[in-house]
Order: sequence, then structure tokens, then C-alpha cells
Amino acid sequence: MKALRLTQWKSEPVLTDVPEPHPGPGEAVVRIGGAGACHSDLHLMHDFGPGQLPWGPPFTLGHENAGWIHELGPGTSGLEIGQAVAVYGPWGCGTCARCRLGIETYCENPAQAPVPSGGGGLGLDGGAAELMLVPSTRHLVPLPDGLDPATAAPLTDAALTPYHAIRRSWPKLAPGTTAVVIGIGGLGHLAVQILRATTATRIVAVDTRKDALTLAEESGADHALPAEAETSQKIRDLTGGKGADAIFDCVGNDRTLALAAESARTLGDLTIIGLGGGTLPIGFFTLPYELSVQTTYWGSRPELIEVLDLAARGHLRAATTTFPLDEAIEAYHRLEAGDLTGRAVIVPSRM
Amino acid sequence: MKALRLTQWKSEPVLTDVPEPHPGPGEAVVRIGGAGACHSDLHLMHDFGPGQLPWGPPFTLGHENAGWIHELGPGTSGLEIGQAVAVYGPWGCGTCARCRLGIETYCENPAQAPVPSGGGGLGLDGGAAELMLVPSTRHLVPLPDGLDPATAAPLTDAALTPYHAIRRSWPKLAPGTTAVVIGIGGLGHLAVQILRATTATRIVAVDTRKDALTLAEESGADHALPAEAETSQKIRDLTGGKGADAIFDCVGNDRTLALAAESARTLGDLTIIGLGGGTLPIGFFTLPYELSVQTTYWGSRPELIEVLDLAARGHLRAATTTFPLDEAIEAYHRLEAGDLTGRAVIVPSRM
Amino acid sequence: MKALRLTQWKSEPVLTDVPEPHPGPGEAVVRIGGAGACHSDLHLMHDFGPGQLPWGPPFTLGHENAGWIHELGPGTSGLEIGQAVAVYGPWGCGTCARCRLGIETYCENPAQAPVPSGGGGLGLDGGAAELMLVPSTRHLVPLPDGLDPATAAPLTDAALTPYHAIRRSWPKLAPGTTAVVIGIGGLGHLAVQILRATTATRIVAVDTRKDALTLAEESGADHALPAEAETSQKIRDLTGGKGADAIFDCVGNDRTLALAAESARTLGDLTIIGLGGGTLPIGFFTLPYELSVQTTYWGSRPELIEVLDLAARGHLRAATTTFPLDEAIEAYHRLEAGDLTGRAVIVPSRM
Amino acid sequence: MKALRLTQWKSEPVLTDVPEPHPGPGEAVVRIGGAGACHSDLHLMHDFGPGQLPWGPPFTLGHENAGWIHELGPGTSGLEIGQAVAVYGPWGCGTCARCRLGIETYCENPAQAPVPSGGGGLGLDGGAAELMLVPSTRHLVPLPDGLDPATAAPLTDAALTPYHAIRRSWPKLAPGTTAVVIGIGGLGHLAVQILRATTATRIVAVDTRKDALTLAEESGADHALPAEAETSQKIRDLTGGKGADAIFDCVGNDRTLALAAESARTLGDLTIIGLGGGTLPIGFFTLPYELSVQTTYWGSRPELIEVLDLAARGHLRAATTTFPLDEAIEAYHRLEAGDLTGRAVIVPSRM
Repeated sequence: MKALRLTQWKSEPVLTDVPEPHPGPGEAVVRIGGAGACHSDLHLMHDFGPGQLPWGPPFTLGHENAGWIHELGPGTSGLEIGQAVAVYGPWGCGTCARCRLGIETYCENPAQAPVPSGGGGLGLDGGAAELMLVPSTRHLVPLPDGLDPATAAPLTDAALTPYHAIRRSWPKLAPGTTAVVIGIGGLGHLAVQILRATTATRIVAVDTRKDALTLAEESGADHALPAEAETSQKIRDLTGGKGADAIFDCVGNDRTLALAAESARTLGDLTIIGLGGGTLPIGFFTLPYELSVQTTYWGSRPELIEVLDLAARGHLRAATTTFPLDEAIEAYHRLEAGDLTGRAVIVPSRM
Repeated sequence: MKALRLTQWKSEPVLTDVPEPHPGPGEAVVRIGGAGACHSDLHLMHDFGPGQLPWGPPFTLGHENAGWIHELGPGTSGLEIGQAVAVYGPWGCGTCARCRLGIETYCENPAQAPVPSGGGGLGLDGGAAELMLVPSTRHLVPLPDGLDPATAAPLTDAALTPYHAIRRSWPKLAPGTTAVVIGIGGLGHLAVQILRATTATRIVAVDTRKDALTLAEESGADHALPAEAETSQKIRDLTGGKGADAIFDCVGNDRTLALAAESARTLGDLTIIGLGGGTLPIGFFTLPYELSVQTTYWGSRPELIEVLDLAARGHLRAATTTFPLDEAIEAYHRLEAGDLTGRAVIVPSRM
Repeated sequence: MKALRLTQWKSEPVLTDVPEPHPGPGEAVVRIGGAGACHSDLHLMHDFGPGQLPWGPPFTLGHENAGWIHELGPGTSGLEIGQAVAVYGPWGCGTCARCRLGIETYCENPAQAPVPSGGGGLGLDGGAAELMLVPSTRHLVPLPDGLDPATAAPLTDAALTPYHAIRRSWPKLAPGTTAVVIGIGGLGHLAVQILRATTATRIVAVDTRKDALTLAEESGADHALPAEAETSQKIRDLTGGKGADAIFDCVGNDRTLALAAESARTLGDLTIIGLGGGTLPIGFFTLPYELSVQTTYWGSRPELIEVLDLAARGHLRAATTTFPLDEAIEAYHRLEAGDLTGRAVIVPSRM
Repeated sequence: MKALRLTQWKSEPVLTDVPEPHPGPGEAVVRIGGAGACHSDLHLMHDFGPGQLPWGPPFTLGHENAGWIHELGPGTSGLEIGQAVAVYGPWGCGTCARCRLGIETYCENPAQAPVPSGGGGLGLDGGAAELMLVPSTRHLVPLPDGLDPATAAPLTDAALTPYHAIRRSWPKLAPGTTAVVIGIGGLGHLAVQILRATTATRIVAVDTRKDALTLAEESGADHALPAEAETSQKIRDLTGGKGADAIFDCVGNDRTLALAAESARTLGDLTIIGLGGGTLPIGFFTLPYELSVQTTYWGSRPELIEVLDLAARGHLRAATTTFPLDEAIEAYHRLEAGDLTGRAVIVPSRM
């Protein structure tokens, strides 16, 4: 079968022929109906070298996957051939306290995972191929009616990541509160939609780009503010001087983190989602009292089920551009060039 | 000044002249801009006799009130004359553990409250008058911009009551769950709106009346089901056999409680809001495991603030018919006759 | 190998020879170091007939089990031969929303479980044998240092059951609150210990038997009250008139449920743990406002891990009397006769 | 009456005669039975100058107070002359969302508080005097039986501060988890006691001083570790490599914050209680995923009630040395010299 593979660090992926996978005990093979092409794949192609990550090439790309069950290994149950499923991407050991609750992102025995801190498309063969081996059926989440694999695939990452961050802040987002989303790109515009669907908080979106602010408003933001010197003061004015109850920084550089800190309320949440590499210094007198600052990484399996429900019921809409597997390299080129509308999704098969 | 007073049990209220109130230390007088006429006032007129409640006539009716601050007693702060406010209705002792958190509905020293388990319009003079004495400024909640007293008044009860019930169930109402509202009247149609605004749960409304089901759909219900023999089975079908995660029974008679129990999911909530006088027998094998059953009564002061924010931002819309104070008796007559659109609100003053 | 089997309904179990089990994919075989003899086994012997439960004899008894891993099937990971483990008893489908979080007690696809609403010793072969087949390694919980299988086995049920009930009430058990445990037998005396170890609530124990009250005090109860007409008034007096914040009824008959209801506080929890068959009628005016009433059944796998930690650190001590497998029938006879100190544990093997 | 007053910045306090206070509407005067002498008072004497704080001298010292109600102003209720009370120290506006829940530490209208971000002994007259004016009876918390004012006074700060920090982390401190307390001084040794009483977490105490480690063990720590290069590795070893679930840094300098960060687990809490002036830089790859970092300041009024209950029931024991008001200056001299056992408490009156 065909697969788009990264064969070595600092190289372009190649579309090549590989043997079809077959499932061992507890495993499954999925016929891929959608594999999202993610910016982090570009980092894998360009930015890493031997020894920097606990895993490496060769492997098939694609860590945002959905499709139909193609083959089930012995000892599996509760699923059937042909069933549409999303693939939960972060694959942990499956037995630690975190994995037992489906929070495999924070697996505490990474040495016992299929690869440490990775998954399909991240050290192991991913979904940019006709078939994909999934090492445990626990990673398969049935798609609800009305959601096809090509639509679902990018949500397993681009929606699950902000969803996880927002869900943990729900108790702080009652009516009368304010949430700020910084950076209205792939994750950020879904963050706005998730806030709109699951809370009645007032939503403030911040970005430097005009079209991003338009996207924020279309996604349901109450206020869309350009990122500039007085943005934090505007947020304070909008909130009667109190500041925002939760801030989701989908950029994460020094400037956005400083803006987040200046805009926050006592007892609030400042959650760093974006991999912008910034640093926020925390001390007793530099931040509002009891503002909680944390990073979040991807999301949990139960949360993925909730995200798919939101999407199937029409609460989440991510614009996508689809590519057949033969044009997968083109998908990454256009992603790199920045001339795509919405998320690029490689579609090896249609039902 | 004029006031609509209940002068004795089992009688019609009379519109009469009474002295204007003046505030003592910590107290305030509110010029009333809206006083909701509530079904429970009809019970006060018709159903009670001496000794049945810990308080009695004479008193001015009206326990759903909003207006403008008219006079402030000594030792008050943080408020100003002319400010628009809603009056939090349940008045407790102010010092017990419940009252300190603003849950005065569940005051644990009722003997030290102004009247035990009552408030303005419930044993003490209420808002069906030009002016109303409020025994502590803690009961005054500033109205947010865009909300006038005549609109806000009925929300202090008809919206606060379902809001309190729903808010405590939020953790059980993540995407993928189902909530059922039984009885789509004054409280129920607001319950649907509150669920729609604050969660992404699937909302099922149940009523016997066709127009109530239409109102449910206009309020945002995903499914509106007539109450009949197979309703619980339909709910089970809609939920893949699992049952509903939270059920809010705004009727509360034996039949609706039985329907609620048959429709519920393990680990769910069955909350009795309606005063229908029904009884649900609970035993180990008669209900889904760990279904929590509870009544709720009215709501807390912090929750009232949240309700008013929801309304000011357009998430809550209660249809109202207004009456000048001179026609207050007419308001109750029409309430009794059942020929009102929405909630009746007595409006002694306009700004 | 030898096994104590129930061969038909309404019969005594027999100690007989059966083939040794071997694990298929994902499965494990455990060499049993402790199998608790539970009162519910007596019900299985005496009270049920064909068609009353969704499963039936023949099967090996014993649903409270611990031991050492004897053999691992293909496709298992993270465990090793000889490792000491407890067996999580309620076996669900493994894939529904409840099972994914380890709450297999409330499995929503019981038809896809190994047996519906059962497990080892409950329709399938249990631990009253030299070896026991466990249908998925997810049911195996490693024993912490300092806890041997014979001690751990009964905790998987007798401690896990009250632990689950208490843990869900933690938010209501801050300092200044009061918890009541009704029935200080096998579960109840562990309930008192769990409350003592995990909260600073004031603990009131209630029982009819004098020695049970002594056991309650030894277990850490602040007050041990005989069950009599004025018990609820005494509880109200102890709490300044407020009532108890959480009540755990380990008996569950009509009288204890009535006592529980009379003793409860607004916003409290009344949790029915005991299978006494009683009924509590719930209505708007018959219980304190917003008292939550619910049953709980057994507990979750993450909670079992926590229970074992509590025990390994010395917070839980259940008295046990051990019996070799050859005397297993005797264990049940003495359980029935009521002349045992603490829990009976059948010990087929010692390390 | 006599009072120990700070008359200007950068000066020693003086014991002088001042007029007796009398309560206005809603106010109360307390006869002081205990006023804790706190290290932060030394900072007030030595470290601040005009304009650095939003308030300044002259005022009477003492912000940890308890006593008996001496006089009640008009419009007060629910309290009586002679009643033993603790004084909740942080005095906010009383009407903002934070104050309405008793979290006056985080008052959002400080300009409308008696002084901005202060209270009795912090800009207004405190408890180092025979009588103290309290500007609202809401700040008075009745002492439970068995707790006298001289014992209760220091708990209103030294116990309330760690209690607030710990209470918010309870959901992360189930059995099987680990909590670390850094700095076992006045607050830290109470932190250990609070963890011991309210959770079953494993408690690790860290300090540089040998006698502090002894105090930690006496207070209930499971492990007492000297602060040194390998401390974080020891904590990781104690926790099977996972790290600590919650870390309470009662020191708060750069070194202790770094130790805290190195010792933490994913999804944990790192709470900065101590005013050591340190800074912790937070970025995506420098801390465990989803570790929440926050400061906490003092505590809320409902929490003070809980702290007093813990103390009255024997769960909290703070060593104190008492001084009559005439020797109040001596108390501060000895506090400064560091030769006190436990907390210094000025006792103007005994019952």
C-alpha cells in the first residue's frame, strides 16, 4: 500500500510503498478516511535531528486520523469491521494512573508505551497511508452519526487540544465571567466555538491579523481585539476593571504571555496552549492573586468523545481542504506556503 | 403610598394606602419598577389558614422585585440613590453558614431572620407597592446595563429557581449528555433557555400541552416530546439506551416523578423543582445506580447575579405582560384565569 | 486444580477438581492468595433461582480476590509473572463511557461484558480456587508494598464499597461538618476508618449492637450512638440543630432510611449502601431541601488503587480469619453461623 | 485605653493611651483576648516608607485577633455581648463578587473598603489594644467551644493562610498522592497538621533546619527531608518517579521555587504561600504538563470557620508564648531576636 513517510530527519517526506499492516492481539487496522496535515509535521521534517526526541524516522506521517475499522486482532471486542472511528492519538502505556483514565498525554510510564511520548505519526506509522495499525482498540472512538472521517480527523488534535484546556476551566466560566482567546488560528477559532457552545461566558478574541479577528467574530466571539499596546487595558475596561477569568494563549510567546498576565483576574486561569516558546516569570507580587498558570498538552480520550459529539451536533465547524493521498506532499507544501483555507486533510479512502 | 395587601388568610388582596417606609441602619427602600405576580401568591390568597406557615397577613404581596434605590439607611455603603437593583427574595438570618454564602433559602437560623423562611411579599411587605423596605442592602443586586426592573423582576424567581437547579448539575452536562425538562411553563421554558446558554447538552422537553412543546422548541429544545406512556422509552431510545443525565421536573407530581425515574441514567441527577406534591419511592433496586434525587428551592444571591447577566446578554427571554399598580388585582385575576401571555408584572413606577 | 463451586441454585457449594485455566489474548491467570467469603455468597447459595439473575451456576465462588500473576496471555503488557495483584471485581464491557473510566459497576453495555452485571465469582469462575482466569489485565491492580493478598482480598469489596460512597461526598465533608455511618459491620467499620483517614469531619456511628458501637469507637468514631427512637434528635443536638452533612446507610432497611432522612441537613448526602431492601419516599416537603439521595454500588478501579494505598499505609485495618482452600466450606458455615471475628478469607496459596 | 501603635514609618511602635472606640451602625467593638504578633509587623516597622502602601501610620498594630464582643452598634443582629469571637482580618468592600463569598482578600473594589487592601492592624486600628473597632459584624466569627481567644488569634492568619492553600488542592490529594511542604516554620508546621487532618496524602516536609524537620515529624509528616541538592530526586524516588501532586512553598524564594518545580507531577499544584520574593519562570517545556502554579494570600471567612473547628477538635496545635499588653513591645523584640517558642500572642484581657 502507499504511505507518506518521513525516512530521515531534516528531509521531505516521500510517498512510497509499504507492506499492509495486520493486527496482533488487541490491535486493529484502520482504513484511513482522513489524516490531518499539521504544522507540527513541518517541524518534524525540518527542525529535529538524531537524539532530540525519544523516537525517530522512518515512520509514516499523520497523527490526526479517522477512518473505518479494516481488521481486528484476536482478543478485541465491542467493535466491528467497517465501523467509522476516530483514532485517539497520544499512545501511553495503558496501565498507569493517567492512562487508566484516558489521559495518555501524561502517561507516567512512557518507557512502556509503544514509543515514549509519541504515537501514530509521531515515531510510529501514522495515518497518511491507506491503512494504519493501531496498537490497542482502546484508542478507537466510534464516530457519532453525521460525522465522516475526513471531517473528524483534524478535530482529534485541533479541537481536542483547546477543548481540554477549556473544559478544565469550566467552573471558572459561569455567566458574568470573561474568557480571552489569544491567537485565532486553527486552534483558536475552535476555542472560540467551544467556549460559545459549552458556556455563557463573554468571549474576547485577540489577534494581530484582521482576517483572524473576522474569523473570531464568525466563530462566536463577543469582542475581537487587535493585539496592541492597550489591549490588556481594553480587556480590563470590558470587565469593569476586574480582568478576564480565563485566558487561553494559543500562541505562547513572550508577548502573548505578558498580555495574558496583564489581562487576568484574581482566581483566574492562564493556560498556555501554544508552543511559541515564551516564558512567563511568576512571583508573589507580579500576577493577580491566585491566578493559576499552566500548560496543557493535547487532550484525553473521554474528551475526544465529547469533541466528536459537539461536532456531530453542529457546534464545531473547522474549514478543511482535502487532498487525495497521491497529493499528500502537495498538502504539506501548501500548508508551508500558508495559502490554505482551513485545515489540510489527506483523504486516502472515501466510504 | 398605595400597596396591594393581603389582609387576612383566605381573602382577595386589597389595594390600599399605607405609610411610606423609611430605612433603619443597614436597610434600604426601593422604588419598585417591577413586581412579578406569581402563582404562589394565589396559593397564599386561597390555600392557607392561621398557623400553617410561620408568618401571616397582613403584608404587601410581591416577592419578585426590582426597582431603583430610593433611600439608604445609615451604615450602608457601595450603593447609591437611583441605582437600578433587583431584590434577592429569600431573607435569612444573614450570619449562618448558608447565609454567609448567599444561600439564604437554606438559612439555618430561621428564627433570627426577619420572618422565618419568608421575605418581602412572604410575611413581610413586598413589592406590589410604590416603595419597598429591604432589611439589608446585601439583598440588593445591581442590574447590569440593558436590563430594566420590569424585565428583571420575574427573573429573580422564575429564572433563578431553574438556574439554581441546573447550575448544580453542570458537571454532569458535558457534550454527549442529555438533559430532560419536564413541564414547559414559566420555569420550564426558562430552564430550556438556561441549558441552551450554559451547556452543550442535548435538551429534551416534555409536556402534555402542544403549545408548551412549541414554546420548548422556540426556547432551544432539541426534542419536544408529548408526555405519554412511551415517553421514557423514547428518551431511552434518544440516548442509545443510557437514559438522561439530568432531569429537571418542574411539575413534581407522582406521574412526572415516575417518568423522571424511568428516564434517568446511572450517576445522573433527578431534581424536583415543581411543587406538585408527588412522591418518589427510592430503594436499592428501583432506580438506576447512583442517580441522585433532590429537591431544590429558589436560588442563591451569587446565582441571581449570574441570571441577570444571562438576561442582559440576551440569553434569557421571558415573555411578560405588565400592569400598572392600579390594575394589580386584575393581574392576579388574569393569572388565575390563565389567559396571560407569559409572566404578569406589576409596574408601580417607570424610570 | 481444586475449586469451591456453586453447581446449581439453592445448593451448598462443593470443593471439586476442575481443569487449570490458561489465558487467551489480553487475559491473565492469577494464583489466588486470598478470596474473601462474603455474605452475598450466602444469598447466591440460598436465595436465587433460575432466571432471576442474568447468569447462573455452575461457577467457582469468590468475588473478592488477590494473588500473584501466574500466566499472561498474548498482547498483555506492563505486568510480570509473580507480581502481587488485586483483582478488580466488577467486569464490564470495557469500552462504554463508564468502563473507560474504570467504573465498570455501571457498565452501559452489559450484554457485551463477559457476563452481564457480574464477574469472577458472580456467574464466572471466581477466586475460591488455586488459579483464577481474569478476562483482561485491566482488572489487575498491583499491590503496594506492605500489603499481602490475603489482607488485600476483602478490601476489594468491603472497603471499596464504602470508599466509593464516601469519596463522592468529600466536598461536603469539610471541617465543621458531620458524617453519620449507620450499621457498623464489615462495611461500616471500614467506612468509619475511611472517614477518619480522609477527612476531618465529625463522625457519628449508629448501631443497635453494643459491640458494634465499641468497634466504631475503636475505628475512630467521635460519637457512637445506639439506634433508638431519639437517635435523630441526638444527631440534631450534636450538630447545633443543623443535621448531618452526609449519611452512609450500610443497612438500608425502612427504619435506617427513615433515621437517615430525619438526621440529614439541607444540601447534604444520604447514600444507601446496604442491601436491606428498604424504601424512602421522597417529596418536596418530606426531606431537607436539596438533600441528595442515592444508592451506590461497589466502586471503581481507580478507587480500588486508592483503597489499597490507604491500607498499605496503615489507615485501614480489617480483622480477618483465614481458611485454607480445603476448609472453604467451613468458612461459609462459620460466616452463616455468625461466629467469625472479622472477614473470612480463603487462602489457597501463600507466597 | 492602652494601645500599641505604629506612629510613623520606620519606627518602633509605642504603647500609648487612645480613646475607647464606640461602634456605629453595623459595627462592633471587641475586647481583645489575643492579638498575634506577626513577622509582617516587623516589616511594617522597618521596611516601608510613605507612598509604598495604600495606607499608613498612625494605627494600632495587630491583625490576628480574637476576643469577646464588648459593644454592638445599631442594626446588628445574631451576636451578643460577651460572646467569644475571632476577627476575620482582611476587610474588603463587602459587596463585590469576592466579598459576597467571604473572600475579602481578593476584594475587587478596594477603594470602597475601609482602607484599600488592609484591615485592622494594617492601616486601621488593630488588636494590640484593650478594645478594637470592627467595621462590620460580618468579620466576627463565633469561637467554637473549647477554643479561647489567645489560642485562636494567631490561627486567624498562621493557620488560615496554609489552610486556604491546601483546601483548594484537596481534589488532587486523594490516597496515593504526595504533598510537599517547603519551610516548616509558623505556617509550614500548621500546613503539615492541616494535611494530616484533612487528607490521607503522603506528606513530605522540607527545611534546611534540623529542628524544623523534627517539628515537621511531630506535626505528622511522613518524611522530613533536609533541603539540599538531591532533595527533588529524593521526592521523585519516594513517588515512584512521578513527583508530588501538590507543593506548598511557605518560603517562596528562587531556590525553593526551583525545588518545587523540580519535584512536581503533571496535573499537580505548585502554590506559593511564602513572601520570599522569588520568581519561577514558566514555559511550555520547563515544567511538568498542566502543573498549576499560583500564589495564595491569606484565606476566606468560611475557611476561618473551618480552621477554628479543626483547632477546637484538637487537629491544630500552634505553640504560643503569651505577653500582657504592657509587654507587647517585648514580644516584638523577642520575635525579632528569634528566641521565641512558637507564635507570640499579646493578651490584653483574660476572661
